Amino acid sequence: MRLGVLTSGGDAPGMNAAIRAVVRQADALGHEVYGIYRGYQGLLESDWAPLATRSCANILQRGGTILRTARCPELHHPERRAEAAAKLRKVGIEALVVIGGDGSFRAAEALHREHGIACAGIPGTIDNDLPGTDRTLGFDTALNTAVEAIDRIRDTASSHGRLFLVEVMGRSSGMLAVHTAIACGAEAVLYPESPNDTYESLVSQLHANWIRGKRSSIVVVAEGDGVGNAVGVGERLKRDYGLDLRVVVLGHVQRGGSPSALDRIWGSRWGSEAVRRLVAGERAFYLGEVGGVLAVQPMARILDPHPVPPKDLGALVSVLAR
Amino acid sequence: MRLGVLTSGGDAPGMNAAIRAVVRQADALGHEVYGIYRGYQGLLESDWAPLATRSCANILQRGGTILRTARCPELHHPERRAEAAAKLRKVGIEALVVIGGDGSFRAAEALHREHGIACAGIPGTIDNDLPGTDRTLGFDTALNTAVEAIDRIRDTASSHGRLFLVEVMGRSSGMLAVHTAIACGAEAVLYPESPNDTYESLVSQLHANWIRGKRSSIVVVAEGDGVGNAVGVGERLKRDYGLDLRVVVLGHVQRGGSPSALDRIWGSRWGSEAVRRLVAGERAFYLGEVGGVLAVQPMARILDPHPVPPKDLGALVSVLAR
Amino acid sequence: MRLGVLTSGGDAPGMNAAIRAVVRQADALGHEVYGIYRGYQGLLESDWAPLATRSCANILQRGGTILRTARCPELHHPERRAEAAAKLRKVGIEALVVIGGDGSFRAAEALHREHGIACAGIPGTIDNDLPGTDRTLGFDTALNTAVEAIDRIRDTASSHGRLFLVEVMGRSSGMLAVHTAIACGAEAVLYPESPNDTYESLVSQLHANWIRGKRSSIVVVAEGDGVGNAVGVGERLKRDYGLDLRVVVLGHVQRGGSPSALDRIWGSRWGSEAVRRLVAGERAFYLGEVGGVLAVQPMARILDPHPVPPKDLGALVSVLAR
Amino acid sequence: MRLGVLTSGGDAPGMNAAIRAVVRQADALGHEVYGIYRGYQGLLESDWAPLATRSCANILQRGGTILRTARCPELHHPERRAEAAAKLRKVGIEALVVIGGDGSFRAAEALHREHGIACAGIPGTIDNDLPGTDRTLGFDTALNTAVEAIDRIRDTASSHGRLFLVEVMGRSSGMLAVHTAIACGAEAVLYPESPNDTYESLVSQLHANWIRGKRSSIVVVAEGDGVGNAVGVGERLKRDYGLDLRVVVLGHVQRGGSPSALDRIWGSRWGSEAVRRLVAGERAFYLGEVGGVLAVQPMARILDPHPVPPKDLGALVSVLAR
Repeated sequence: MRLGVLTSGGDAPGMNAAIRAVVRQADALGHEVYGIYRGYQGLLESDWAPLATRSCANILQRGGTILRTARCPELHHPERRAEAAAKLRKVGIEALVVIGGDGSFRAAEALHREHGIACAGIPGTIDNDLPGTDRTLGFDTALNTAVEAIDRIRDTASSHGRLFLVEVMGRSSGMLAVHTAIACGAEAVLYPESPNDTYESLVSQLHANWIRGKRSSIVVVAEGDGVGNAVGVGERLKRDYGLDLRVVVLGHVQRGGSPSALDRIWGSRWGSEAVRRLVAGERAFYLGEVGGVLAVQPMARILDPHPVPPKDLGALVSVLAR
Repeated sequence: MRLGVLTSGGDAPGMNAAIRAVVRQADALGHEVYGIYRGYQGLLESDWAPLATRSCANILQRGGTILRTARCPELHHPERRAEAAAKLRKVGIEALVVIGGDGSFRAAEALHREHGIACAGIPGTIDNDLPGTDRTLGFDTALNTAVEAIDRIRDTASSHGRLFLVEVMGRSSGMLAVHTAIACGAEAVLYPESPNDTYESLVSQLHANWIRGKRSSIVVVAEGDGVGNAVGVGERLKRDYGLDLRVVVLGHVQRGGSPSALDRIWGSRWGSEAVRRLVAGERAFYLGEVGGVLAVQPMARILDPHPVPPKDLGALVSVLAR
Repeated sequence: MRLGVLTSGGDAPGMNAAIRAVVRQADALGHEVYGIYRGYQGLLESDWAPLATRSCANILQRGGTILRTARCPELHHPERRAEAAAKLRKVGIEALVVIGGDGSFRAAEALHREHGIACAGIPGTIDNDLPGTDRTLGFDTALNTAVEAIDRIRDTASSHGRLFLVEVMGRSSGMLAVHTAIACGAEAVLYPESPNDTYESLVSQLHANWIRGKRSSIVVVAEGDGVGNAVGVGERLKRDYGLDLRVVVLGHVQRGGSPSALDRIWGSRWGSEAVRRLVAGERAFYLGEVGGVLAVQPMARILDPHPVPPKDLGALVSVLAR
Repeated sequence: MRLGVLTSGGDAPGMNAAIRAVVRQADALGHEVYGIYRGYQGLLESDWAPLATRSCANILQRGGTILRTARCPELHHPERRAEAAAKLRKVGIEALVVIGGDGSFRAAEALHREHGIACAGIPGTIDNDLPGTDRTLGFDTALNTAVEAIDRIRDTASSHGRLFLVEVMGRSSGMLAVHTAIACGAEAVLYPESPNDTYESLVSQLHANWIRGKRSSIVVVAEGDGVGNAVGVGERLKRDYGLDLRVVVLGHVQRGGSPSALDRIWGSRWGSEAVRRLVAGERAFYLGEVGGVLAVQPMARILDPHPVPPKDLGALVSVLAR
């Protein structure tokens, strides 16, 4: 059996671990793997080549993806999906492993529904915002990267007795923001799913800390929070209260880096499991972790609503900031 | 209400996160916390002092424990436990938060059973070997430390085409060894709970890799594996096959360091939860993570058998080493 | 003899190493040290306290400064300097160790010239822009932090075949930018002292790389470069050529963090040497590293022009980017 | 002109930076580079291939050496050197860049003296023990790795109030040991060139610290110190004083890892300079850093005695340990 594997959407640490596991598990079972470069874009351009087990040496510890990645809006058009399916059939790729997020899985779901291409999804996005799984590849690494960066900022915040607003990734999800806030001991957190964390509640919280004697504060702000992003919130605080604050936008630093142990382990487990299931004849599913164990979801489940950060974590931030 | 908190047994990253959460959650609820130094040893010596919320500033990110720790075999004697309970009563400490492992919880269980001291346990040991929880404080940090160290060793192994045996902690548990092996892409792993991973099977696996063209290999060995520790296995391989191998014992490097995001988050959550439950009148329990969510176990559950590493992880190591 | 020590200006990793060495060397020679909090601001407010050798335990590895720091424009006024000198005399502080940069040394120079206060300067600034020394505390750490961050960005740049503009600190100095560019293998660098690195030369360099087949590029931009900062350059490139690029401003992440080995060693050496010289009666000097060995400069030398990055390093960037 | 490049002896972080610079500088000047695999061993086996500039992409940040390395005692025999020279001539390699240490340079010196092969040496060894240079590739990285490891151990040492003996690399050189000791704030250091640091002086120093109230201590021991290595010293201390101490041998963890900024910069500068000088007709030299600037030494200088660690650094350790 010939399988294809591609990475799609934003790159995430752990994608290489998954690619390696796909290739080596397939080899162990006597099957062949084609690497498809630059996601669905490469698929449309037949940009692929066989991946030998040796070509996966020393990639487990690398960030990014050796298959490169791209966003491919073209695949929203049914005719381009038909084209993609035809190309796969022609070269004899019977099943596809798609490593990516939301949009990548939706495309896979359509490829299967419309053209019968067997598809397995491996959750790869630092946002950790997919339904049906507690974890996505890259989240744990991005979380640790953000926390390490804020540990450094804390040194300066303490030395100067200063307020810092730090923006982390998560355009529509506060998962990274709220976990980062707990782990770096932030004084407050703002994120999209939390309607009560308003500008006013932030101000009163900072005020309470100041009364309590805290001279330095870190506020974690998700990219897409309702109050306005870190730069916007910062401008408003400066204007309203003349605070001597600093804004740091962590940006793409959060996306790369050698994957954490957890991301390597789950990338490895999912890559192996995806192949075993495709080889056994399963057709349209994606993998995840639910309750600490490996879970399998029907691909159509990707259309469910996104998970939201646990409420008690948000509340815990202010308790621990005393 | 006056609570006491102590750390006991081997230190583990994340203990300070738990101490901070205990102190600040108690403060938020209007209760007072005494820090007890050097574990049960300090308890027997009345070595304690009130912990203010401000004294927990900037400790979240520190390894080790600000309360220091010790092993205290004396507490195995019922008369010393009576003494300990009397001292706690005298100073007005009504409930105890014990951060530690197996032995520390057993002592807490006895203190409660024999003397009615309310005790909450927070799992703190890098070994991840407690019944009733999928995770213990320090395990994720130690895992990442071991993996980073082996990433470095891999550079040399590849450059020289050489075999390395790397010993990780875990005298009676292979948890750290098997997770490390997956995450660092080890060629093989030896750990106590795996009776089939014999010296002979290791030899045949290394031989198969050599035939396949692999010139460098990493074998992860748990401290207490059945075959003999890393130095022992190394000696035998040298004697039997004249292999040019190197042995590295990671040792205490694995125990310290700034805690990972996960260890900080769980330390924070457990510290907060322990206080809320003690204050609400619960008496003898320990906290854990089961299926991704916070779990509560009766303290007596610590007498259950230790968990063992998932079998499929062990098998995955050799599939991925192709 | 009673000495005072303060940190002033922006905080820099290694300042705590210097403080520790000042205190312990003074103790070894039988002298006493007062820690002055928040730089010259604290001096004006008599915000100081004796520093015991024990209070310097476990600070060597911490970023920031335990004495906290501040900028103090007031000290530009001669009458405030007279006030400062009077306060020092009153509490019996006979000599001052000033850890900071340019402005901090100028203030020390004036304090000595006008009021006879003995002053020793220890270069502490991540900018590495002081005359008379090849190195300042914090530079090596900030350099490594910037390089690690760009290593992560490189993962994403390679995965997406994308151009990144990364802004590093250095408002008037390209030292950090040019060293970072070599160390991270940047395709180009823009910094203030390099008049030939124009927008046009950047464009032609990126074009040449593209022809040569390079699909991803990293350009390092100093905060204050002549072409316009990273955001500005990025806007212009997007407008003129429609490039799909990303901008990352590393910002305050570069300032904190545990100091590198070199910064700890030089902080320790300088702190010890400053005390030995003050105790021996020297009056107005600062320390540095010239040609690999510890150097001493008269305090007035701080008025000399700033050093500029070696020209050959800038040229090397484009050779190595082939 | 066709140049050859090889790495020889123990691998060191920064070797890949140097290889990359050799290849790209040669390309910039219109010359060709052959990569010779596994050091002189590969040279004797004609194990080489042209190295394209593209093959050096993304290696700057990798530890180890993409050319692999080996020790090659055979090259001590004049007849094997004649053989090597003949093979180089046959394939048209006119000049050799040798990245390695002491022994590797001696072999290069003989190849030039006996057979007229032009040779440039780039110092690559974590031991920093070559005459004529203040720095060798890998030393700064190994130093930081050792310091980070000991920072972790310090957490446990403080938590338990315990003595740790930590052995760092350096069979005949205390360079790494003494710099590590200053940078990690060790209480004492033992290294081969320091005859006064006896077992007795160590004991009295530890005793003085204990009196002063220090409950935890770190002693850094060089692999080859006169007193006996860390395990030996530890046994003796246990036997003589019943101390509850722990021994950690850092071992090969120190050798790998992503190179520090400094090692990348010097690898890049030296690689570029070696090519420019060989192309300009220079014949037998090696590069170094003296007084902060790039230095060139005649290859025969490698026969000079090894440098020893600065005496004042050793003395500083005990002053700062107060």
